[in-house]
Amino acid sequence: MELVFRGGTILAIDAQHRVVTGDVACIDGAIVHVGGAYTPTTDAYDIVDCTDCLVMPGLAQAHVHSCQTLARGRADDLELLDWLRRVIWPYEAALDDATARASAELAYAELLLGGTTSVLDMATVHHTDAIFAAAQTAGIRATIGNTLMDAADPAIPAGLRDTTQRALDESARLCAAWHGKAGGRLRYAYAPRFVPSCTDELLAEVGRQATARGVGIHTHASENLGELALVEARFGRRNIEVLDRFGLLGPHTCIAHCIHLTAEERALLAARGAHVCTCPSSNLKLASGVCDVPALIAAGVGVAIGADGAACANNLDGWLELRLVGLLYKPKAGARALPAPEVVRMATLGGATAMGLGDVTGSLEVGKRGDVIAVDTTAPHVTPARAPWSIAAYAAKAGDVRHVAVDGRLVVRDKALLTLDVSKVKQRARAAADRLFK
Amino acid sequence: MELVFRGGTILAIDAQHRVVTGDVACIDGAIVHVGGAYTPTTDAYDIVDCTDCLVMPGLAQAHVHSCQTLARGRADDLELLDWLRRVIWPYEAALDDATARASAELAYAELLLGGTTSVLDMATVHHTDAIFAAAQTAGIRATIGNTLMDAADPAIPAGLRDTTQRALDESARLCAAWHGKAGGRLRYAYAPRFVPSCTDELLAEVGRQATARGVGIHTHASENLGELALVEARFGRRNIEVLDRFGLLGPHTCIAHCIHLTAEERALLAARGAHVCTCPSSNLKLASGVCDVPALIAAGVGVAIGADGAACANNLDGWLELRLVGLLYKPKAGARALPAPEVVRMATLGGATAMGLGDVTGSLEVGKRGDVIAVDTTAPHVTPARAPWSIAAYAAKAGDVRHVAVDGRLVVRDKALLTLDVSKVKQRARAAADRLFK
Repeated sequence: MELVFRGGTILAIDAQHRVVTGDVACIDGAIVHVGGAYTPTTDAYDIVDCTDCLVMPGLAQAHVHSCQTLARGRADDLELLDWLRRVIWPYEAALDDATARASAELAYAELLLGGTTSVLDMATVHHTDAIFAAAQTAGIRATIGNTLMDAADPAIPAGLRDTTQRALDESARLCAAWHGKAGGRLRYAYAPRFVPSCTDELLAEVGRQATARGVGIHTHASENLGELALVEARFGRRNIEVLDRFGLLGPHTCIAHCIHLTAEERALLAARGAHVCTCPSSNLKLASGVCDVPALIAAGVGVAIGADGAACANNLDGWLELRLVGLLYKPKAGARALPAPEVVRMATLGGATAMGLGDVTGSLEVGKRGDVIAVDTTAPHVTPARAPWSIAAYAAKAGDVRHVAVDGRLVVRDKALLTLDVSKVKQRARAAADRLFK
Repeated sequence: MELVFRGGTILAIDAQHRVVTGDVACIDGAIVHVGGAYTPTTDAYDIVDCTDCLVMPGLAQAHVHSCQTLARGRADDLELLDWLRRVIWPYEAALDDATARASAELAYAELLLGGTTSVLDMATVHHTDAIFAAAQTAGIRATIGNTLMDAADPAIPAGLRDTTQRALDESARLCAAWHGKAGGRLRYAYAPRFVPSCTDELLAEVGRQATARGVGIHTHASENLGELALVEARFGRRNIEVLDRFGLLGPHTCIAHCIHLTAEERALLAARGAHVCTCPSSNLKLASGVCDVPALIAAGVGVAIGADGAACANNLDGWLELRLVGLLYKPKAGARALPAPEVVRMATLGGATAMGLGDVTGSLEVGKRGDVIAVDTTAPHVTPARAPWSIAAYAAKAGDVRHVAVDGRLVVRDKALLTLDVSKVKQRARAAADRLFK
């Protein structure tokens, strides 16, 4: 089966920041052609019109919580630890398979319609099969982990705290069941929630087992000063050092937030090849702070961008987040800091690399998988559209995304999601949220 | 003529932060009914369906430059003074009546489609009649000023520098021609660009003549440290003191930006009843800094929100800006700083008040003019939509705006602009931009 994105302006996200015009074509899910005219080789082809569109790799968000979407608008104006203890942990404890799936389907619908083709997704402690099933149906490229929480904390609802062994067994089971499924589109990642919610034994085992199974690690660190104080009280060290001592830092590790880091911690991340995913809306809204992205880049750390969850950022909108990353650092670092092409690269190839998929997706290059989006540039808020990098970094909105393919398969065509019935997804989400918050 | 917004969830933006359900009705442009069921009194009525919509006052942006829209994407990653001297002033000098009008029509189309019903708009040095004509046709409520620049500065293109007398004469002429026209929807405001671009004589005369004519004053101040240095070198004082000495501070003054203020300057603004319009995207992107909105509010200064121009913020999107205001201050001031209802009020009634229209628009109250919008809350990125303030502050997007009325007249219905042919507006804008940047 051939899929052709025809006649756009192409941001390939290659080393030369190339902008070319013409077609992007995929055969059997892989990109076979970028730029210039493409002639299908068989009769089994589908052509989508990309006139007046930017054609680019889909956004790759390396930190989301699809299971939290039903708590959108239910937990505003709280700082992180209050937000977790008062709303999010009780909410996650109340989820069942059906509500978890409803939440994830809503998340994936929003993400795909907005041009995000890959996510690194931290589920909750249970119901991770339901999240995988939602990703399988929605057609998104998803690396998902069962959240690991086995430490004693009276604020954690009983249903949400696991034993160490059960947490590890469940990850092993999920990894065997889902990692590499759907032609490699679905993958597993170990997801210790954050240091305070995990015992030493669990952290050490996660390092060993993730390495043994060849899968990634996805966690949070240094998001909040209260969290830092808990870690320092327990270990007399800072988060990144603790993660390193337990063998959790490597090129397949992605750590969300990393707001409160020392230069030594940044150097350690760089030395280990670990990645950071910054989530600016979430970090501002939970009063956590601002991740020093320019310092991470200067230290040689790979940076990705994510929306976190709808319960904190309220949207799962990669464009809002990448625009924020483009804007936030200029007052301190100068107007040329993080220029448009660099931010767009961070939101695509940077995200793919952070989730261990840098060779698979994140750019439009022959041989990579066909994770391709077309962004309409004719709306008044983009007109006159003569500067493609500027459009992608500063002017385009999620609502401008016209076509989306994952693995060379069209999942959004002319702004309509083809894989899920969006009106039913919304209906189930509303009903599930009403049950959960009653 | 009666216009009924039927069956929404209404954010009235009154003193009690009331949320009610039902209808909002206007007769002959004025609001006559808010909440509960409304029965038209005559046969000459129009009903718009607001099922699953938030119905609220339109956004009031108290600082925009509609004449700069054609430079969208042409001046990225520059700090303010470079941005003005290298791109914006040469661009403004190259405008003619047709290109100025094309720029303003594009701006007003984007603004109205995105739910902004009122703007305080700084035009350029010439062609302000064309900007007024665009506002008249578009149907937006606009307070517009001819930009005043008479100081010697080799960086200002010859065509853009006015003599003091001509600048004042042109303002007087424009004020007579347009102030109060279109049933009061169009108004004039004196618009000295900023202190460095104006002579002492001009500044003093603006204070006198604006007062004499009973019109507002719209300027920029303390946006950039280079600007501050110019002002301090010339006067040995800070911006706000200088404006006060020339009689420019009063309840009908709106000053954009105000990033670099002392506590004394904030107190002086409060004492004079002058307003500040913060433009967070623009301030970040031009590397200017972040206006200390919580400090202004604590000092008793009225704060409004604006997108500035498409040449700096890239969009003219009131929702992006109000969301940013809601997020930016939480890391320093706490998660409860500027909670959702306060930010929504700032973006509506705050803006109206800053442009001298606090008694006319900015809230849905019987007797005010019918500047009403309906925001659809059924998109996946808003679902499940159970918290109206949260939706308005954090989740809604410009693309969710379904209906818009100004002065009780429908200008957007089911996301279509009724007053301008948008495809022609875009066509003229593209052609004009290509001419200007050739």
